[in-house]
Amino acid sequence: MAFDAPTSRTRINRLPKRGDYSRETIYGILDAAFLCHVGFVVEGQPYVIPTGYGRAGDTLYLHGSAASRMLRTLAGGVDICVTVTLLDGIVLARSAFNHSMNYRSVVMLGRATPVEGDAEKTEALRVVSEQIVPGRWEQVRKPSVQELKATAVLALPIAEASAKIRTGPPVDEEEDYALDVWAGVLPLAMKTGAPVPDPRLDPKCAKVPEYLERARRKQS
Amino acid sequence: MAFDAPTSRTRINRLPKRGDYSRETIYGILDAAFLCHVGFVVEGQPYVIPTGYGRAGDTLYLHGSAASRMLRTLAGGVDICVTVTLLDGIVLARSAFNHSMNYRSVVMLGRATPVEGDAEKTEALRVVSEQIVPGRWEQVRKPSVQELKATAVLALPIAEASAKIRTGPPVDEEEDYALDVWAGVLPLAMKTGAPVPDPRLDPKCAKVPEYLERARRKQS
Repeated sequence: MAFDAPTSRTRINRLPKRGDYSRETIYGILDAAFLCHVGFVVEGQPYVIPTGYGRAGDTLYLHGSAASRMLRTLAGGVDICVTVTLLDGIVLARSAFNHSMNYRSVVMLGRATPVEGDAEKTEALRVVSEQIVPGRWEQVRKPSVQELKATAVLALPIAEASAKIRTGPPVDEEEDYALDVWAGVLPLAMKTGAPVPDPRLDPKCAKVPEYLERARRKQS
Repeated sequence: MAFDAPTSRTRINRLPKRGDYSRETIYGILDAAFLCHVGFVVEGQPYVIPTGYGRAGDTLYLHGSAASRMLRTLAGGVDICVTVTLLDGIVLARSAFNHSMNYRSVVMLGRATPVEGDAEKTEALRVVSEQIVPGRWEQVRKPSVQELKATAVLALPIAEASAKIRTGPPVDEEEDYALDVWAGVLPLAMKTGAPVPDPRLDPKCAKVPEYLERARRKQS
């Protein structure tokens, strides 16, 4: 299935030229991030909660404590919205009105279902872990049966989704270009700092793993 | 009013020690960011949309095109959730299970009301502008009557809110500290890059304004 035919719920109405429904664009944005904001409704009140995610194929995996309200609500198969936003810059125009932001965002609608079975849950958790720090999963102690029981894992089929993207310089009213105002873009990006060792790190483990150095280079 | 008495809707149930309801903490987080995710419901379906904001006193201001679905929906006085998330690091534990993130987030619930009157709207837009790039508003062309008409501005009273914060190193199971695994925190922060001039920038405006250099230093 392609997203090239947006539904009435995912069609970009405001500034439609910023809308994109191709799987390539949407998955490109999803794969460049690992934090999403999940929207769900409890007794008519919407809640928006930040959480990590992982994508594999056409599925988005979410996880959390089996005791959390969000995970319990989502597991009930309710309508949710998962939004991923990458902020790329502040667009500084000559008029206040034409200020904007450069960004890449994806909005996904659907219903999540619980991932059942220890092997299936472990694989989904691997996907989430690899999305956040590729290479880490291999090194760490895997979840015990007890830990799997305490963890809820949910799968959201990526079936109804849209991307919205803005790039490039400001667009001003023609007469404003003559104004004596600096205009352009202040780029923004999430950057990594130097890894901070756990105070309890055994000196024999002091060497920062190569995959972390890679993660650093990729982001900074 | 203090937030020291959380409502049943804003009380942090999961890991309550991460919860904080003080105005000082909540406003500190709000003032360190400018991007929020707004959750609202249309025909039972939640939507989560990223947008800029500004805070003045106990009010959060949102703005957008008067034609946007989000702004029109919000102006109807429906229940919304506004969430602000600052991601500070990836917490790398020795077990997959104890991985986490360091973050500061605020969840606000309430109903927004339209800001009416050109002077009031202009002042609210100034607040949003100053939150994003302090100093910019003074320099740019202010909104015309036409532009104000095309802009919807909403005020959300910050009355029901909670913060959630995690800081510090990983916390592992006692027996896992003996594992041969690097553990610690990979810091993350939104950083600015070098300002990119508009290709149409008049050479006489080429000097990057001091307030932009300040914004850069603050974030990078």
